[in-house]
Amino acid sequence: MPNISRKGQRMPASPIRKLTPFADKAKLEGKTVYHLNIGQPDIETPAGMINAIKNIDFKVWAYTPSEGTLSYRKQLTKYYNKAGYNITPEDIIVTSGGSEAISITFMTCLDAGDEVIVPEPYYANYNGFASQNDVIVRPIMSYIENGFALPPISEFEKNITDRTRAIFICSPNNPTGYLYSREEMEALKALVLKHDLYLFADEAYREFCYGDQPFISPMHLDGLEDNVIIIDTVSKRYSACGARLGCIISKNRKFWEIAIKFAQARLSPGMVEQIAGEAAIDTPDEYFERVKSEYTTRRNTVVNALNRMEGVYCPNPGGAFYVMAQLPIDNSNKFCQWMLEEFSYENQTVMMAPATGFYSTPGAGLKEVRLAYVLNNDDLAKAMKCLEEALKVYPGRTVGREHLVVSSWH
Amino acid sequence: MPNISRKGQRMPASPIRKLTPFADKAKLEGKTVYHLNIGQPDIETPAGMINAIKNIDFKVWAYTPSEGTLSYRKQLTKYYNKAGYNITPEDIIVTSGGSEAISITFMTCLDAGDEVIVPEPYYANYNGFASQNDVIVRPIMSYIENGFALPPISEFEKNITDRTRAIFICSPNNPTGYLYSREEMEALKALVLKHDLYLFADEAYREFCYGDQPFISPMHLDGLEDNVIIIDTVSKRYSACGARLGCIISKNRKFWEIAIKFAQARLSPGMVEQIAGEAAIDTPDEYFERVKSEYTTRRNTVVNALNRMEGVYCPNPGGAFYVMAQLPIDNSNKFCQWMLEEFSYENQTVMMAPATGFYSTPGAGLKEVRLAYVLNNDDLAKAMKCLEEALKVYPGRTVGREHLVVSSWH
Repeated sequence: MPNISRKGQRMPASPIRKLTPFADKAKLEGKTVYHLNIGQPDIETPAGMINAIKNIDFKVWAYTPSEGTLSYRKQLTKYYNKAGYNITPEDIIVTSGGSEAISITFMTCLDAGDEVIVPEPYYANYNGFASQNDVIVRPIMSYIENGFALPPISEFEKNITDRTRAIFICSPNNPTGYLYSREEMEALKALVLKHDLYLFADEAYREFCYGDQPFISPMHLDGLEDNVIIIDTVSKRYSACGARLGCIISKNRKFWEIAIKFAQARLSPGMVEQIAGEAAIDTPDEYFERVKSEYTTRRNTVVNALNRMEGVYCPNPGGAFYVMAQLPIDNSNKFCQWMLEEFSYENQTVMMAPATGFYSTPGAGLKEVRLAYVLNNDDLAKAMKCLEEALKVYPGRTVGREHLVVSSWH
Repeated sequence: MPNISRKGQRMPASPIRKLTPFADKAKLEGKTVYHLNIGQPDIETPAGMINAIKNIDFKVWAYTPSEGTLSYRKQLTKYYNKAGYNITPEDIIVTSGGSEAISITFMTCLDAGDEVIVPEPYYANYNGFASQNDVIVRPIMSYIENGFALPPISEFEKNITDRTRAIFICSPNNPTGYLYSREEMEALKALVLKHDLYLFADEAYREFCYGDQPFISPMHLDGLEDNVIIIDTVSKRYSACGARLGCIISKNRKFWEIAIKFAQARLSPGMVEQIAGEAAIDTPDEYFERVKSEYTTRRNTVVNALNRMEGVYCPNPGGAFYVMAQLPIDNSNKFCQWMLEEFSYENQTVMMAPATGFYSTPGAGLKEVRLAYVLNNDDLAKAMKCLEEALKVYPGRTVGREHLVVSSWH
């Protein structure tokens, strides 16, 4: 049998999906499983997008330009400039989801052996795109104690080598929900300019900021035109994960001209999606206000319930729809599997993502889980009750035996 | 300004699209441009697919499983088993077009520095996927004189090194239209088994076979279960290039289990496309019969017209919707650009793809162009008339000065 590639053998399994067989088995046994493991929102996709699909009017489902249709890029420009980005349609390449935006960005900027610095915990699939390109991820630890704020710039400096090409951030953050402040963004700006690095910014959760703190994009900072690559997607913004419609934005022309070659190699993004995406831009502001209010309620339900549980700590995040919680347990992988295999409360259980998959430092995240608050508030309350009961009886619980401590990997 | 990756700098421009600025300018000047440069069919997408889109019924445009929905994979299984493939839904990974199918296949099987052998001329974008993975393409020359038949196996043997991992074929072929015979497929089978290689088979044009010669897939040959990776797409089959819906088929479980990790990293193929793809399987046979009859007529128009022109040679291909023609010209790149920039006949001109982009051997294809017969028969006849007139006046014409010769790179 021919060999599999070494990079294939190194590819990590998805921490978000790896417990799926256990969840399937639990469901077969008749248990209700609350899925807090995956960022698939239950919010309805805007009617304008759905109607745009239903009203398609073409005879030939044809390729579009590799960079996306001009009419969609014009609409996107409207959206981004309302957010203060000051771009033109020529700054955009439409992609098949945020995933392809990351993939093309990596290929355009990074060679095998190059390094990209990412504050951890981080979205686990970044590892997959790094593996694909034989790129090395250098994690910089952020900590639950201060809500996963930006680590000190001195920590970044320590990890910059002659192979460092980029800093990769995600704000509001998946998995932590942390929203970088203007001061934090300015500190990153000074760092990337000092070392002439790219700043990759995953902004999938731009529209999901709660409270008074404003969303700050690197596109809002002057002097970063050549450094910033924005990675975006409609997946979360319009609850349209299955559309696979994203984009790359950059004012660096050289970057754009090479990135488009990678985009040409895969010919075109989807045509129907771009029609729907065009309609999405006219989604009324009330849609986002309603969604934001819904997520704020949910976040409060989850954060309050978690912090009331003995030995549990959960910072209150400023955005996205995830929280990271530290639990009084021996091992989050074992615990999450046990929840599905062994535990039930009134015939219900909860599926969560063990946090270990969001760290690349070995041993980090062993006491943490990520919860996506993508279910309605009633189900979330039930899921929290389940979790509370589970923590009382989990054989590997550490409550009573130790306090919430600085973890061993600090 | 941060650097572009070396692999980005090496990325070739698309030979199919690189003359687009000249075509745009010609159109601005009021010329009619017949687009024979790109495989974008004008055939209508089956009504069943379009209606499936119009009739979507969901509230949340959600992710699907990374391998595609079970219902779509079941339908695909029906389609492939009708073609004698003997597969199950577990052998399929649904992808974003044939492009992603190639990309995931390369990543799963090939590391940086590995080699893949491809008969040339070949679909130019294979170079892009090779560049992305730092993989080396070893071309084996096929020749217009015998219609681009499979080169002798001894030529493959000469090019097999300890880094060779795969043979990559495309039948019916883009750009040549050549359809491999059972004997040629059996020869390839013996070769890949002897050297324990993968056999990647791009079957985008499976439904486009003309005449009596049957389409033979490596899936029709016994004993290749671990070696064969089928790359497919609905783009050409249902004239749905803009759907970006393809798949990988393999009975090699180890391959599948690693390939799915790359598929998980990009989360999911498009949801609406899979709904449309499911409907496509029920496209009545008459659709394909009508399409085949239409393409046969077009092929005959083009091949006959070309061979009637002085100094032109065009083999009559068994499939796909491309022909390669040898023209009495100095340089196909110059000629194709001249056609757009300098020439017109009754205010019309023709856009073709210079064949050099389909060869990786330097100098090969200088006298050849690829023509896609994707316009209606009347327009094709007009395009052929234009080309005939152009060849009479092109400053770099070689008719009268030399005969159709074995090219210098032979």
